[in-house]
This record gives sequence, structure tokens and C-alpha cells, in this order.
Amino acid sequence: MTRPSPERQALELYPFKVEILARYADVDPLWHINNVAIAQYYEEARVTTTRRIMGEGRIPTASGLRLLLAKQSIDYLREAGYPGKLTVGVGVLRIGNSSYTLGMAMFQDGRCVSVSDAVLVVADARGPIRLPEDYRDRLAALVIESGPQS
Amino acid sequence: MTRPSPERQALELYPFKVEILARYADVDPLWHINNVAIAQYYEEARVTTTRRIMGEGRIPTASGLRLLLAKQSIDYLREAGYPGKLTVGVGVLRIGNSSYTLGMAMFQDGRCVSVSDAVLVVADARGPIRLPEDYRDRLAALVIESGPQS
Amino acid sequence: MTRPSPERQALELYPFKVEILARYADVDPLWHINNVAIAQYYEEARVTTTRRIMGEGRIPTASGLRLLLAKQSIDYLREAGYPGKLTVGVGVLRIGNSSYTLGMAMFQDGRCVSVSDAVLVVADARGPIRLPEDYRDRLAALVIESGPQS
Amino acid sequence: MTRPSPERQALELYPFKVEILARYADVDPLWHINNVAIAQYYEEARVTTTRRIMGEGRIPTASGLRLLLAKQSIDYLREAGYPGKLTVGVGVLRIGNSSYTLGMAMFQDGRCVSVSDAVLVVADARGPIRLPEDYRDRLAALVIESGPQS
Repeated sequence: MTRPSPERQALELYPFKVEILARYADVDPLWHINNVAIAQYYEEARVTTTRRIMGEGRIPTASGLRLLLAKQSIDYLREAGYPGKLTVGVGVLRIGNSSYTLGMAMFQDGRCVSVSDAVLVVADARGPIRLPEDYRDRLAALVIESGPQS
Repeated sequence: MTRPSPERQALELYPFKVEILARYADVDPLWHINNVAIAQYYEEARVTTTRRIMGEGRIPTASGLRLLLAKQSIDYLREAGYPGKLTVGVGVLRIGNSSYTLGMAMFQDGRCVSVSDAVLVVADARGPIRLPEDYRDRLAALVIESGPQS
Repeated sequence: MTRPSPERQALELYPFKVEILARYADVDPLWHINNVAIAQYYEEARVTTTRRIMGEGRIPTASGLRLLLAKQSIDYLREAGYPGKLTVGVGVLRIGNSSYTLGMAMFQDGRCVSVSDAVLVVADARGPIRLPEDYRDRLAALVIESGPQS
Repeated sequence: MTRPSPERQALELYPFKVEILARYADVDPLWHINNVAIAQYYEEARVTTTRRIMGEGRIPTASGLRLLLAKQSIDYLREAGYPGKLTVGVGVLRIGNSSYTLGMAMFQDGRCVSVSDAVLVVADARGPIRLPEDYRDRLAALVIESGPQS
């Protein structure tokens, strides 16, 4: 099992930040933030980033385009606690034809608790489409200088 | 079906406030904040209030005492939306021998979206116990001048 | 605090049954099925009942009609455990003009762990509408001989 | 982005199976089973597998040992629907010193909707420990003849 590089565990790497407020409901029978809750925090970070990129209003991904999560990996590095805030750093690792990879990391009290890569595919009702140019441009503005997580 | 009084729908009524940050995960297939998510927000408000009352640290209800939810009613008055913040107002409606009733209401963009009553019972490992005096005093400081929700 | 009648705690009372499989994710930091998970089980029972009544396919409440939860009360009587199955009994307590009340109760290992009343309102895009006759007839077939929960 | 091999998408590969009942609460605003719900199903499969391996009762991982999720990757291959059942196939891909890798895949209506690898670490209060021999033996009985997912 390879672990994420120290570089990937530094909040400064990530151009976009999303704040999460832990809930009691996120707490595990083992008394830490549950790993599925961590996946939910990353979902919140992805959705918030998408709304920022696409400039939409209250509701993500209207307009016929759909953004599908194709693959996600999460490294759980340290336990996170409740109550507390967490910060998710988000950037773009790779831009492909119809997909792109977000690089993310999660922090609590200044320490990296988790790192994640997520591959997203842009599709319409029939299947994957080429990334629209303006979308591509906005993703390019969030690219981070790092290799993929492995 | 009786509805909560206008008085119960006013944020000013409630001595204690808890902030909630809506998540995409709380959104319903019908595109509003799901009613179970609303129940989760009330749980967060209850737990936060308890930690405030009991003066505890990271984790609620250690110390042998347990706080059991015996009954909760929720009136759903308006739909709440994502993204957005919500405020839960919390106060004490009634203090009994081993139980007490919280009166709560939830607000988004200045409008009351929901009202809830929750009956909580204090117990140790063997069952309900008389409310400790200091606990009772702290609850008394949060009493609101209102009849129960009906 | 009045408690549900013994009659309401008997599975035989309820004409419709829904099976729930508890998940580890439903377990509380205090090691029982969390009260918000119980609310989620009741949601599952309501949705399943509605699909049965309305004769719909994979997805509940298409067709322009919307079914809104207006009010729900839940009595938590005993702790439920994981792993395990639960059975929710569902019946109709009251049929009004544009709303109706479901009476429900939840059972694990033959014991009633919770009782709930839920008021549902039928609406279209503009607001509440009169219950369609065929819907009313199907509800009538599920009426249970019991007064409301209190 | 490499995709899981066809071999990994075949239910027959996996020596252990866990049944999941989809809930309305798992449905996405985009009308399919949400990706975080999929992560929750894999959690259920992991916990159920662990209880089977460790021969424990109602509650997983008592006894001082803790099982930590160190890393998980999930490939989302097809959308899953509600209502419906899902089957998670589980096997062991690799057994290390203090950790092991589960290979899992999820199926609905006979089609593979997702594949996942999860790395688990056995620890006591001070940190990772060597896998106990009997635990190692039980894992060995679930090994599947396949390379890791990529």
C-alpha cells in the first residue's frame, strides 16, 4: 500500500477550499468520524467545486449536462473528531477528453486526515461528451502541480 | 391537524441557537431538503444543546448518564433548500421529574421551515433517574414562555 | 408524556408490513440503532406503502402529484439493535380532504420498539388538492380500527 | 483511467456474499443510488465479512482489536436503481503483515454496478499489530485468484 506524498497532504497545494461542519450523525460507533461520512464530505467538496466552476445557482448540474463520478479513491490517514470543522482542499490533477481528475485532501486542526482522487465524466443523456471549452478553461485555472496519488 | 402557533415560529422565542450547514447529501429526489435530514438537524441541535448544558468536551454524554430521546414530533411547514444555512432555535418547554421537553424551530432565509418538540429522559444503566439538580438549574435558564406545541 | 396504547404496539393491528434490514451505518455512538435511522426506516415504510397504493413502478410519486410529509411524531419505546431485521406495520388512521394520517409501529424480535403517526398531504404544483377518489378508496382499504396516537 | 477487469466484474469470483436492500434515502437528486450510499453498502459488506471472520455476536470489533480502513477505491460502472436488492461479493486479494486487502464488487439484476478494493489494518490501542494467526487463517480461506484492481 503506497501512501499519499507529503506534498499531497499540504493544504497550500489546493487552489479551492470547502468548509465542512461535522455532525453528531457522522460519528462512528467507534467514536470517530465515520469513513462513509468522510466520503460524504468529499461529495460536498466536489459538488461545491462544480457549482463554482459552472456558475450555477441553488442546484447543481441542471442544463442537460450530467457529471458522473467514475472512480474515487480515499486514503484514511488519521481519525477526525466531533465536534469540529474540517477543510477540504480541491484542485485539478488531470484534464482528459471527456473526464477530469480532482485531487482533494481533508484537514482538521491543521492536520491532514485524508487524501482523495476522484475521476469525473461529463455526459449528456446518451453518454460521455467532450468537455465543453469554457468548462475546460475553468478547470485549467484550478490545476495543481502534482502527480496523481498513485 | 393543528399547526404550531405563530409564536412558536418566531426565532426570538428561543434562547439557544445552533447553526446547520446543509449538504448535498441532504437533498431529496424531489429536490428539497429531505425530512429525515431535518430530523438529523434537530438531532444536531439537541446534542449541541446538551453539550452546552452539561459543559462537556468533544463527546456528548460520557460520565455514566445517558440521555434518551423518548418522543419527538416534527411539523414540516415549508421546504428548505440547498445550498444554504439553517438556524435551529432551542428552548425548554417543560421540566419533569426525570424528563424534560425541548421546544425547537428551524429557520432558513428568515422563514420558519419547521417546528419540533422533543421529550428527553435522563437515565443511568438501570433506567430513568431523577434529573440532577445542577442539570435542572441549567435547563431552567433555557425555559421559554410558551405552551407545548399541541 | 402520554405513551402509545398497548393496542398500537401490536403488529397484528397493521394491515401492511414493510421489512427493514438494519445497517452498521444506522448504529449510534451509544451502540444502538440511532433515532434518526428510525426516522429513515419510517420514511422507507411510507414510501413503500405509497408505491403500493399508487401502483407505481421503480420511482415514487411521478405523475405530477406530490405527497408531502406535513407532520410526524415518533415514540421511541425500546432500543433496537444491529445486526437485525425490523418490521414496520403500516395502516391508515384518518382520511381527510387533502390529507391522511398513517399509523405505524416498528418491531424487532417480536417486540415493539417504536410507534409513529405521520400526516401526509397530497398536492400538485400549486398546493394541496382534494384526495383523488381512487387514492381515497385504496387508503380506505388500509384503515385500522384505532384512535390516533394521542 | 484504467477500468476493473471483466474477471473482477463477475459475481462467481467472490467467495462471500452480502445482500443489501436499497432504501429511498439512498436515492440521489439525479434519481439513482447515490455514490455515498454505494460506499455505505461496501461498509456494510466489510463489517458483515469481519463479523463472519471473527465469529462475533451482535457488535463488530469488540475485544480490544480495532480494524481500521486505511484506503478504499471504488469504481462506479453503472447506475443502480431503487427499489431493489443488491449483492456485494467479497474476497481477499492480499494478506500482509498487519493489513489485508478486500476485493469487492456490487451487482444488481445480474449486472456489475461497481468494483472496490479496501485495505484494512488491524490495530490495538497503540497502533498496527501483526495479524493474529487464526485471523490470518480465516482470511486465507477467502482468498480470490485475481490480481489487485489496478
